[in-house]
Amino acid sequence: MAYALGLDYGTNSCRALVLDLESGEPIADAVFEYPTGEKGIVLDPSDPHLARQHPRDYVDGLRESVLAALAKAAQIDGFSAADIVGIGVDTTGSTPIPVDASAQPLAFNERFADEPAALAWLWRDHTGHAEAEEITALAAEMRPHYIAPCGGTYSSEWFWSKALRFARVAPDCFASMHSFVELCDFVPGVLAGVTDPAQLKRSVCAAGHKAMFDPAHGGLPDAEFLATLDPRLAELRERLYGEAFAADERAGSLCGEWAETLGLPAGIAIAVGAFDAHMGAAGAGARPGRLVKILGTSTCDITVSAPGAARPDVRGICGVVDGSVLSGVWGIEAGQSAVGDIFLWHARQHVPGDGDLDAKFAVLEAEAAKITPGGHGLLALDWHNGNRTVLVDPLLSGMLLGQTLSTTPAEVYRAYIEATAFGALKIIDRIEEQGVRVDEIVCCGGLAARNRLLMQIYADITGRPMLVSAVDQTCAMGAAMFGAAAAGFASIGALQERCVRLRDDVVTPDADAHATYRELYALYSELHDAFGERSGAMAHVMKKLVALRERVR
Amino acid sequence: MAYALGLDYGTNSCRALVLDLESGEPIADAVFEYPTGEKGIVLDPSDPHLARQHPRDYVDGLRESVLAALAKAAQIDGFSAADIVGIGVDTTGSTPIPVDASAQPLAFNERFADEPAALAWLWRDHTGHAEAEEITALAAEMRPHYIAPCGGTYSSEWFWSKALRFARVAPDCFASMHSFVELCDFVPGVLAGVTDPAQLKRSVCAAGHKAMFDPAHGGLPDAEFLATLDPRLAELRERLYGEAFAADERAGSLCGEWAETLGLPAGIAIAVGAFDAHMGAAGAGARPGRLVKILGTSTCDITVSAPGAARPDVRGICGVVDGSVLSGVWGIEAGQSAVGDIFLWHARQHVPGDGDLDAKFAVLEAEAAKITPGGHGLLALDWHNGNRTVLVDPLLSGMLLGQTLSTTPAEVYRAYIEATAFGALKIIDRIEEQGVRVDEIVCCGGLAARNRLLMQIYADITGRPMLVSAVDQTCAMGAAMFGAAAAGFASIGALQERCVRLRDDVVTPDADAHATYRELYALYSELHDAFGERSGAMAHVMKKLVALRERVR
Repeated sequence: MAYALGLDYGTNSCRALVLDLESGEPIADAVFEYPTGEKGIVLDPSDPHLARQHPRDYVDGLRESVLAALAKAAQIDGFSAADIVGIGVDTTGSTPIPVDASAQPLAFNERFADEPAALAWLWRDHTGHAEAEEITALAAEMRPHYIAPCGGTYSSEWFWSKALRFARVAPDCFASMHSFVELCDFVPGVLAGVTDPAQLKRSVCAAGHKAMFDPAHGGLPDAEFLATLDPRLAELRERLYGEAFAADERAGSLCGEWAETLGLPAGIAIAVGAFDAHMGAAGAGARPGRLVKILGTSTCDITVSAPGAARPDVRGICGVVDGSVLSGVWGIEAGQSAVGDIFLWHARQHVPGDGDLDAKFAVLEAEAAKITPGGHGLLALDWHNGNRTVLVDPLLSGMLLGQTLSTTPAEVYRAYIEATAFGALKIIDRIEEQGVRVDEIVCCGGLAARNRLLMQIYADITGRPMLVSAVDQTCAMGAAMFGAAAAGFASIGALQERCVRLRDDVVTPDADAHATYRELYALYSELHDAFGERSGAMAHVMKKLVALRERVR
Repeated sequence: MAYALGLDYGTNSCRALVLDLESGEPIADAVFEYPTGEKGIVLDPSDPHLARQHPRDYVDGLRESVLAALAKAAQIDGFSAADIVGIGVDTTGSTPIPVDASAQPLAFNERFADEPAALAWLWRDHTGHAEAEEITALAAEMRPHYIAPCGGTYSSEWFWSKALRFARVAPDCFASMHSFVELCDFVPGVLAGVTDPAQLKRSVCAAGHKAMFDPAHGGLPDAEFLATLDPRLAELRERLYGEAFAADERAGSLCGEWAETLGLPAGIAIAVGAFDAHMGAAGAGARPGRLVKILGTSTCDITVSAPGAARPDVRGICGVVDGSVLSGVWGIEAGQSAVGDIFLWHARQHVPGDGDLDAKFAVLEAEAAKITPGGHGLLALDWHNGNRTVLVDPLLSGMLLGQTLSTTPAEVYRAYIEATAFGALKIIDRIEEQGVRVDEIVCCGGLAARNRLLMQIYADITGRPMLVSAVDQTCAMGAAMFGAAAAGFASIGALQERCVRLRDDVVTPDADAHATYRELYALYSELHDAFGERSGAMAHVMKKLVALRERVR
């Protein structure tokens, strides 16, 4: 018997999962809700951009979730914690934590007990929005190749925006920081007992997608570029890293202290960390030709190139990073800023009735399912929360066109589902333009499992079969698979063969519907380009409305 | 003492009103609901375009409403029916009635008891939509000047579309028809005891706005043009009319039979008829520089040129007709296809809650009033029911742009009010381009009286003072004024001085809001032209959506 342990650090909680490597089945899992702040997030009422977490929660969550999962597994005949061969870790990101020279979070130091900058800077912290613009502008001038892969815009959610903001708002705390460590590098370091930040094996997933790390330009952004932003960033660079690793590599071995705490064998493999979406994609079966879509309030779309392919030059996405999903192939990440969020906003705010949301959605779905493609005469743009890819423009907004006095909420609902599917197809088209094939789509998340109508519309619009992962916890399972791979138990490819579970009810495209949707997609593309591309004929309209709104508010 | 009687024939009922010509105050009125069909309208479940009325209802309504109004007036000290000097009539239109050689409706003939074509063809009957397209196409080729004043499109609601349709669907009945008489010409004929259709004095308002009558091209469309459509139309033309008259002229004198029926002096003046909006505009104070807006589910916008002005060449409206509102000046009619209807559709269909509509509107208005112009970041196109003027395109549709995940129903409501105001300003701009000034706007209708927010937004967007008529029944009062004018009691101008009542609370534009709205109007105009003008860059989008909808349904 052999098992692996997967740890999945989400936004509000972390989860441990025990994977049976013989059967490929998860046998136990447990969740730990972060106790600090609001649902685990430290907020600042005076600054809606701020979102931090206390690193103590990560360490407590590590211990409590693993012990609870192991206790559940111990109920199962034949299970022994001694048979666990490796541990993998996925986390949110970019979520960097300031640490001292012994790799301890500054937040554990009494001196910084009241300093929010000493906490972990959660992925959705946007306090560095002005810094992000500064980085974007400087890169456009000095190093355009740094930001070309992410569509020419560096995000406020990413590593260097946070570092620069940190240096400015809390210079003393920043000066006390030895290194700024992504959560997905921090947790493996804790498990491996690393006490020197230089010894942390950094995730190529985090480094490549969020910190502009690329071996082709010598790793991290160069010192001259960073010093132009702020000399302290160039100094920080010296203490960061020159190499980054794929998640099937070994970050270290379980140290004695944590082996004892968790009741696991000391010395077992700790895999290099990665982001949740990337390990989740592996756990859902990402492979060449298959795109994994993590479908929730927003989406994360992950696929990989064919083995041996040259670096695909996919513009306007969230980056192309060698090994960020699977070793030896280019990991490609894209995403849509709002999908489920648009449906929630519509059902909550723009549909009559006082019924609960589930009841509203049931009616909307039943009514919308009766509509023939094109039958409502509507067309929408799905930019209610901006456009993450392929336009990379947070200032875009939504649009609905074609309303008549008999347009119903269910028709609008269907138009919004279609709009998000057209947006998804834009991403697929952009990826395929660079020779990376997307033959089928695997969805993870409750929306895919629940909403049959959505799946059919996506199949009809993309012209591709839509599959659904049959595993609830694809991220934690993916993490466990990487733990096993790092232990040398099997390759990720072999582990996928054994562990990936897809539901039998594949949703396939209807040829007639697809043909109609090709016509609508041509119209969507016209609106998309006219309103969304920076050179588009109507591109100024949404921008001027936002500028006016900001001015008068 | 002197009084006049006004008769206002609406879509579901007719109303009689007694106007005191000394004080200028209406002293009594009464309504008669048409008993036939659904709320007075004969429908055909198999054809949603069909909308007819039984002429018996018009005659019964004439008797009953006048008797009831006179009975109420008789309660007032000093009133005597013997002091009524004249009667004016306004009606819906184009609502033509087939009559025989003695001016009796064919519907009164037992032979046509089951023939819907023998009924009155109500203004909103659209059965002639294909015929309207045929007339438009032929006029564009043969007689472009016939349709130039109405934006190049002849409507299915108008006289010749109905006549042509009639000839085709009910040829026997058509062959039995001696003349096709607008309701606004029929009622004065009844009162005057006219038994020869050739003796009916036809309204220039109906003839000019709906039947392409224009003295400049010899009256009605020429026989060659009509014969090309259908030889029977050229034959009908011979039995129609060569002259048309303004409503302050005398159509005839009250005949003995109706004098007895109504208890009125025989021989008093019967004014030439006109459409409700036109007489309503006169009753609300239409004059050079002032536009009267009848604001309801849709709008009708009426103004007049300065005295002595050359014919203004205002394209894309519902026509420019000499004397159609006031004698001696050009009457200009325009309108928006949906205004109140958009708000109703929004509140009913796209706002949460199960509360009644009034409660929903109260909340929407209170919330929307808190929003600074431009503060919601939204922009809408108000074409949910097509665009009547200035684009004259029933296939246009609505649009809403700028939505975010925090956009509220009240913000959308405000955006829709603003969109209808921008549409209103487009009409004003088009009229002013031809040298006809619009310095202020008088609104009639419940929406104007109730919705202070709407009035302020309209003032701020148009940059013009918004006034509200203080008379509930401006159409019936206008009709009574024309009855008095036809009797020679006074000119319409003098009667307006005496009778028109405007509320004291004039809503004036706020300079800051107007400045912001100028910026938004520039954006609205860009969308308007790009999506709405036939040469616009995005003009095909809405058309293709409609074509697709029609195809798949």
